[in-house]
Amino acid sequence: MTPFISFIGKSNSGKTTFLERLIPELTRRGFRVGTIKHDTQHGFEIDREGKDSFRHKNAGAVTTILSSPKRLAVIKDAEEDAPLDELCLKYGDGVDIILAEGYKKGEHPKIEVTTEKSADELFCNHDKKIVALISDNDYNIALPAFRRDDAAGAADFIIKRYLDQRRYGYLSLRVNSRSVVLKPFIENLLRDAIKGMISSLKGCEKPKDIEIKIEEEDTDLHR
Amino acid sequence: MTPFISFIGKSNSGKTTFLERLIPELTRRGFRVGTIKHDTQHGFEIDREGKDSFRHKNAGAVTTILSSPKRLAVIKDAEEDAPLDELCLKYGDGVDIILAEGYKKGEHPKIEVTTEKSADELFCNHDKKIVALISDNDYNIALPAFRRDDAAGAADFIIKRYLDQRRYGYLSLRVNSRSVVLKPFIENLLRDAIKGMISSLKGCEKPKDIEIKIEEEDTDLHR
Repeated sequence: MTPFISFIGKSNSGKTTFLERLIPELTRRGFRVGTIKHDTQHGFEIDREGKDSFRHKNAGAVTTILSSPKRLAVIKDAEEDAPLDELCLKYGDGVDIILAEGYKKGEHPKIEVTTEKSADELFCNHDKKIVALISDNDYNIALPAFRRDDAAGAADFIIKRYLDQRRYGYLSLRVNSRSVVLKPFIENLLRDAIKGMISSLKGCEKPKDIEIKIEEEDTDLHR
Repeated sequence: MTPFISFIGKSNSGKTTFLERLIPELTRRGFRVGTIKHDTQHGFEIDREGKDSFRHKNAGAVTTILSSPKRLAVIKDAEEDAPLDELCLKYGDGVDIILAEGYKKGEHPKIEVTTEKSADELFCNHDKKIVALISDNDYNIALPAFRRDDAAGAADFIIKRYLDQRRYGYLSLRVNSRSVVLKPFIENLLRDAIKGMISSLKGCEKPKDIEIKIEEEDTDLHR
């Protein structure tokens, strides 16, 4: 699964501005960056009123996709806030790392962006998943810290910690729309058994990436 | 795989207007509709300049996701035109049918929307995958035809032809980023073998939907 880190902090603490500096730093070093913006309050607009995709969505389409040779957009109605790890799993193909804005909750690595003067006010006092601080203030806290203009330093930290090892083959599993965490032994067993079966198919002799979806008979088709 | 149909026709033949009528007809009957707009020429905009997601994308993010409790948007850079069947496979979850605009090429079912006076000018003379016509003109052609204001009739046709059978359990497979078409015997064998393995895992005793992704060791990590 693509590694992901969320940047947390109060409104106007400078999360987006820092990401605007960090994204080109990572890109310049050859990593493809994905981002996720968590919008808990505001809606957002996709395409302009009157454009075809807007008209599709407005007519009641649950999902609308715009596809061009240079860009792809998918707009879906949601029924609830999608968990960060599920977003990364489903849409994280093609990128080396995902930087998220928001997602204070959850057991993933986080970087705190702050303008607080006092160390007592920092989220990292209460959240052990915070791995670094971005601030122009100095705190007496045992965490790596970077100035707001030091995106290069933060990029070094992120690469060393999350990107610098070669990734090994892995298997991810979702059953009944939920991620299943597997023990390494079981993961290896499943991976090797499935790769064995697939590689015996004509034209699939050297499977590198495999994606399988199984859906049950739908006895509850919407009518 | 979610069934999909593309609506083809010249510019200004009324494809989008007809879809604006058809989407609510299918929705009213309880089907969840997805749409795909194929944009071969124009770019498109996602969100407004100055908004956070725009700033992420503009800073060089390859993929940007906006997630809110009511809506999800994914914007990705593409390197080539994505094939229709791949879009439907990857993003078609949660809908019962996908209606596409464009995609003249390909071996999927198509409906032709036309204002031509002469039957000689119709695409359906040359494309056996065209299953119906939308036009206010009469042609002496042996294909189901519907007036532009008869979205209800077209909805009946689509439902009867593509949605009215209960769907059976199926397995879809992608290897090395390409869809693999399986013979039914092999599909059943793989499905039953994988379901058997997964259902022996704790907490996965009754697998309904299963998604598995296997990725090989990445010896070509971008640095």
